[in-house]
Amino acid sequence: MRASGRLPNQLRPVTITRNYTCHAEGSVLIEFGNTKVLCTASVETGVPRFLKGKGEGWITAEYSMLPRATHTRNGREATRGKQGGRTLEIQRLIGRSLRAMVDMKKLGEHTITIDCDVIQADGGTRTAAITGGAVALVDALSWLLREKKIKQDPLQHLVAAISVGIVDGVPLLDLEYTEDSACDTDMNVVMTQHGGLIEIQGTAEGKSFSRDETIALLDLADAGVKDLLAAQQQALGW
Amino acid sequence: MRASGRLPNQLRPVTITRNYTCHAEGSVLIEFGNTKVLCTASVETGVPRFLKGKGEGWITAEYSMLPRATHTRNGREATRGKQGGRTLEIQRLIGRSLRAMVDMKKLGEHTITIDCDVIQADGGTRTAAITGGAVALVDALSWLLREKKIKQDPLQHLVAAISVGIVDGVPLLDLEYTEDSACDTDMNVVMTQHGGLIEIQGTAEGKSFSRDETIALLDLADAGVKDLLAAQQQALGW
Amino acid sequence: MRASGRLPNQLRPVTITRNYTCHAEGSVLIEFGNTKVLCTASVETGVPRFLKGKGEGWITAEYSMLPRATHTRNGREATRGKQGGRTLEIQRLIGRSLRAMVDMKKLGEHTITIDCDVIQADGGTRTAAITGGAVALVDALSWLLREKKIKQDPLQHLVAAISVGIVDGVPLLDLEYTEDSACDTDMNVVMTQHGGLIEIQGTAEGKSFSRDETIALLDLADAGVKDLLAAQQQALGW
Amino acid sequence: MRASGRLPNQLRPVTITRNYTCHAEGSVLIEFGNTKVLCTASVETGVPRFLKGKGEGWITAEYSMLPRATHTRNGREATRGKQGGRTLEIQRLIGRSLRAMVDMKKLGEHTITIDCDVIQADGGTRTAAITGGAVALVDALSWLLREKKIKQDPLQHLVAAISVGIVDGVPLLDLEYTEDSACDTDMNVVMTQHGGLIEIQGTAEGKSFSRDETIALLDLADAGVKDLLAAQQQALGW
Amino acid sequence: MRASGRLPNQLRPVTITRNYTCHAEGSVLIEFGNTKVLCTASVETGVPRFLKGKGEGWITAEYSMLPRATHTRNGREATRGKQGGRTLEIQRLIGRSLRAMVDMKKLGEHTITIDCDVIQADGGTRTAAITGGAVALVDALSWLLREKKIKQDPLQHLVAAISVGIVDGVPLLDLEYTEDSACDTDMNVVMTQHGGLIEIQGTAEGKSFSRDETIALLDLADAGVKDLLAAQQQALGW
Amino acid sequence: MRASGRLPNQLRPVTITRNYTCHAEGSVLIEFGNTKVLCTASVETGVPRFLKGKGEGWITAEYSMLPRATHTRNGREATRGKQGGRTLEIQRLIGRSLRAMVDMKKLGEHTITIDCDVIQADGGTRTAAITGGAVALVDALSWLLREKKIKQDPLQHLVAAISVGIVDGVPLLDLEYTEDSACDTDMNVVMTQHGGLIEIQGTAEGKSFSRDETIALLDLADAGVKDLLAAQQQALGW
Repeated sequence: MRASGRLPNQLRPVTITRNYTCHAEGSVLIEFGNTKVLCTASVETGVPRFLKGKGEGWITAEYSMLPRATHTRNGREATRGKQGGRTLEIQRLIGRSLRAMVDMKKLGEHTITIDCDVIQADGGTRTAAITGGAVALVDALSWLLREKKIKQDPLQHLVAAISVGIVDGVPLLDLEYTEDSACDTDMNVVMTQHGGLIEIQGTAEGKSFSRDETIALLDLADAGVKDLLAAQQQALGW
Repeated sequence: MRASGRLPNQLRPVTITRNYTCHAEGSVLIEFGNTKVLCTASVETGVPRFLKGKGEGWITAEYSMLPRATHTRNGREATRGKQGGRTLEIQRLIGRSLRAMVDMKKLGEHTITIDCDVIQADGGTRTAAITGGAVALVDALSWLLREKKIKQDPLQHLVAAISVGIVDGVPLLDLEYTEDSACDTDMNVVMTQHGGLIEIQGTAEGKSFSRDETIALLDLADAGVKDLLAAQQQALGW
Repeated sequence: MRASGRLPNQLRPVTITRNYTCHAEGSVLIEFGNTKVLCTASVETGVPRFLKGKGEGWITAEYSMLPRATHTRNGREATRGKQGGRTLEIQRLIGRSLRAMVDMKKLGEHTITIDCDVIQADGGTRTAAITGGAVALVDALSWLLREKKIKQDPLQHLVAAISVGIVDGVPLLDLEYTEDSACDTDMNVVMTQHGGLIEIQGTAEGKSFSRDETIALLDLADAGVKDLLAAQQQALGW
Repeated sequence: MRASGRLPNQLRPVTITRNYTCHAEGSVLIEFGNTKVLCTASVETGVPRFLKGKGEGWITAEYSMLPRATHTRNGREATRGKQGGRTLEIQRLIGRSLRAMVDMKKLGEHTITIDCDVIQADGGTRTAAITGGAVALVDALSWLLREKKIKQDPLQHLVAAISVGIVDGVPLLDLEYTEDSACDTDMNVVMTQHGGLIEIQGTAEGKSFSRDETIALLDLADAGVKDLLAAQQQALGW
Repeated sequence: MRASGRLPNQLRPVTITRNYTCHAEGSVLIEFGNTKVLCTASVETGVPRFLKGKGEGWITAEYSMLPRATHTRNGREATRGKQGGRTLEIQRLIGRSLRAMVDMKKLGEHTITIDCDVIQADGGTRTAAITGGAVALVDALSWLLREKKIKQDPLQHLVAAISVGIVDGVPLLDLEYTEDSACDTDMNVVMTQHGGLIEIQGTAEGKSFSRDETIALLDLADAGVKDLLAAQQQALGW
Repeated sequence: MRASGRLPNQLRPVTITRNYTCHAEGSVLIEFGNTKVLCTASVETGVPRFLKGKGEGWITAEYSMLPRATHTRNGREATRGKQGGRTLEIQRLIGRSLRAMVDMKKLGEHTITIDCDVIQADGGTRTAAITGGAVALVDALSWLLREKKIKQDPLQHLVAAISVGIVDGVPLLDLEYTEDSACDTDMNVVMTQHGGLIEIQGTAEGKSFSRDETIALLDLADAGVKDLLAAQQQALGW
């Protein structure tokens, strides 16, 4: 049915490789089919100025695509001298989503930066980044506990994210690039381990969508996120 | 019930003033209670490079807050040398929403820039900007027709936007600043004149939200947007 | 005689609206005919680094035009990533002029920022900004006294500013845009309530000007500034 | 009387060295006492976009201080990533002043850039830059004629500039740094060879100044500029 | 002898993986021990402005480290708004080295950009980037031939690079991070397949070095580069 | 033999003028033929953040060319908003070279900035900057001793630098611009007063170079640097 032979409600093969690089407190390569994102979690002592002295921690995210992660080369943002709007929009989404995982009081005055660098892109990079970043974040929290820098586990729940969309009137799970380019509606959904919604971002690309289509997409996403949560937990050895 | 005495499903007073300034092809001051946004539509001949020679037009938006639109002064982005992530995220949302109003083929090789400058902020500035920007855009399209620069009206339908959210467990329409700061879930909804959804952006601030809450918020937004569309049409003398 | 029907020594109608927005310690909309500038005064505790520990305050100004304040749209400085030379030149002039109003010792370690945002431009925006900014500054000083953050009134005198110029050999007061574009000499004059000169900036646009013309322009400005000072005092209820 | 032993109406020794460097079409080192500015004029074919196709030329100026031209080191603007407000204000003044020298129609579609780099600063750098830049510009115009790139001499008249100010109530000509720091009023005056005024920029530093003081300063400047014009002409071998 | 058990003249294990990502015309992951660099070659039609119309091609390189490629996190250059001096120095070296491989006339008006992104750093990232980038460049040239975009093979010779240094008086080949930090002299050497030198960059870190030490280091590098050239050729299946 | 009539191993006339400007703690104009570079050394109390509290000093360098130091005008880096790669590469080289002169412990917590501004360029500007900067640095160290800000002389040895290259197969000393443009190999060599090498940067411009050519160039440089060291010492009155 789909170009890839997948069913409408089928994820691409998902691979989560922990300890992909050696320096970071958490380092995960996540693959959704041909989409590959390296997610590292870096722990630093201290917090940004607006949090100083409150005894709380902070989680932030940065997102970038390698110039040739895409079909044609995109100029490097460091060369252009600023991050683009799409990049900032995505890294704000990742940051908000991952902050929802953590009890900031228990984290104490530590900052964890999740760097999500897209090695290869084929649609769904932001949802892969959230899903992989969540695992890297769990590893960084474990490191903090193991190194006795904090006393209580700040983890509240895992978070995972998936894209859904309507292509030729059919709701599809986990859009790859060719589907994403052709879709009428595109939606990214972030959910917790306990089924709660963290973020919904739905956009009409070609034509508007209805209340019923919204519900169908949410239900499709709900099933996909459950599979991702299982993959995360398997990778974590839970 | 609400600090302002409003019912949960009640909008703030909405005022739409056309021709607020004299130079722009469309110029609208929109007020949602104490939130005041000046939306101007500027027509230019020609299109960005990626559209050249396709015979299609382009709509783009820029958003900014005056430094003292808010309770405390925010540094000017021109002084800091770049637009912040929040600004870029919002102006991308406004641009996507307003592009959905227009048949780009009929617009021909013209670019319309919608500038949304927040004079005073009290929550809901992005939805006010979309709702006011839509009226300014209609005026700019009328100007193009009147000046015989285009032959057919490119307008497909009006668009309006409203924020909804859950505060202390209660879904509320059109959050003002104090409600926005206290809410658990915040959602911005953009819809067309014909009831189609253009954009949904829902975010868990404090705790996650459910499928049922999502539906309740969408229904609340649906009613609010209908009122805004009526206000737009009245302002336009339709 | 003039396109607008004004006499050579006649100001445009001047309107000064205090408390135009609700958050700032001083907020003034000033109109010189079709020129409309929103001037807000924001008080912050503390001073820039070069003044720390001296027990003195600081006044600074920022100036910006909304993109479509003008006949054709001007790109936003925040988007271009820097303020232009004209903007910096004007905001330095506004800052110097308003600093002359205040006894910095009495102000103590407070910084007042005067933001001058041009809503609509028709010539004379910098002089309108100084004249309106002076009123916003007075309101901010009153706020400091009322809030008991300072003990003595730091106000030394009001300041107002007007443009004068020579068009077709005739000295004119308060140039509007079409006159400003056609003038041979353009001069901005800032004066105190007591008749002292704070700033003179005279520029030959087309041909040079003489000592006698300079004196004629200064005298014309002197009368115009007196009228503006009366309008300021009336607005302040003095 | 003055720290340097000069009379109130006496210039510092002025030296104008042409052909100071070898590559530029005009290259002048100008010294006003200890103030030393290198002014080069560079000719390029073509004009900025806003002038294309009008058959007119353009003159522009850039100004910079070497980091240790001053008593203490100033950070390099190239390192900070932007030119400061003072720099932009000064280079706009220089540009306007030198454009007044030239008939742009006769210059044809050439751009001449006057670079004014302050090697050593002791007050009056902007007036030295204008006075030296004028000589470099004359040399560049001669080069254009000599190379037969233009047919008619575009030079209308020389221009020179001087600072004047009031220190302890006494009007002084050509302020050096210690006087400039102590003055109540500071004025820069640009005049043509024929006695016409091109620019007046007067600023109250400590207290306001009067109409009579303005006239006294203009008369003092007038005499000083005449001496500078003589020095320019002598350097040019006229 | 060395911490890693290597002999002074022994390389770390070198791995060259072609086609590491799927979109680029050349894509190579190169590993020198724990140093891992992804090198992609992107072909674009056209050349930079300074080469237009000359019928020649251009090769350029960009270099970046992922933020957590290193022991502690380095801020992202895109966030800081500019590339650092070290980055620019390295990418200029890579570009010069790889340009030496190609006959620009035979390349015709194509630009090949070599992006070198360091996934994990343990010393020698710039020499790994050159060595891996050379292979990616060969693949991109083959692609141009295969796609019949050029007629003749522009490849002149392979190029490879290695670092050498003096640690505690002993010349060592292929420094890893701990050796690099402790060395007295550090030298990067780039050579062709035919034994010619392309670039030598030798730096005294702690104390100066002698003519004899220079020769010893060059000879050590010569042997190391020969091994790298063999690894490149094996990876290319030559 | 050479266009200038020089022998292959002959330097251009070298002039070193100390106290060229009056404010800096060290100020040297160095001339290698037509290449003229102003090198100032500025002493500041304190060190960069990464050195705080270690009791060590810091030496850093900045390099810039005046826009018309060259045959055609180069845009000013301050106007473009960033320093180019060539500039950063050169100023890093100058900084490393001059740091090798000083015992940082004896310098204590002082920072010395060497500004190298090229007044006129004719090849070899970076080696002239190092050679002149070394003299300015010596003067700044003497100033620190004379002002009793430090107790022991931190100077370890002088440093000087020269360029060498191969033109038409002939190794030449001290390339001027026309030779530099035509050379096959270009090498910059920095050495101490005691004959130790500090930096070698050799680059193949047209074709690769051999081990023997490297040795020949090093020997040529060695003789040239000895002459420069003599000129430095003469200028310093040693």
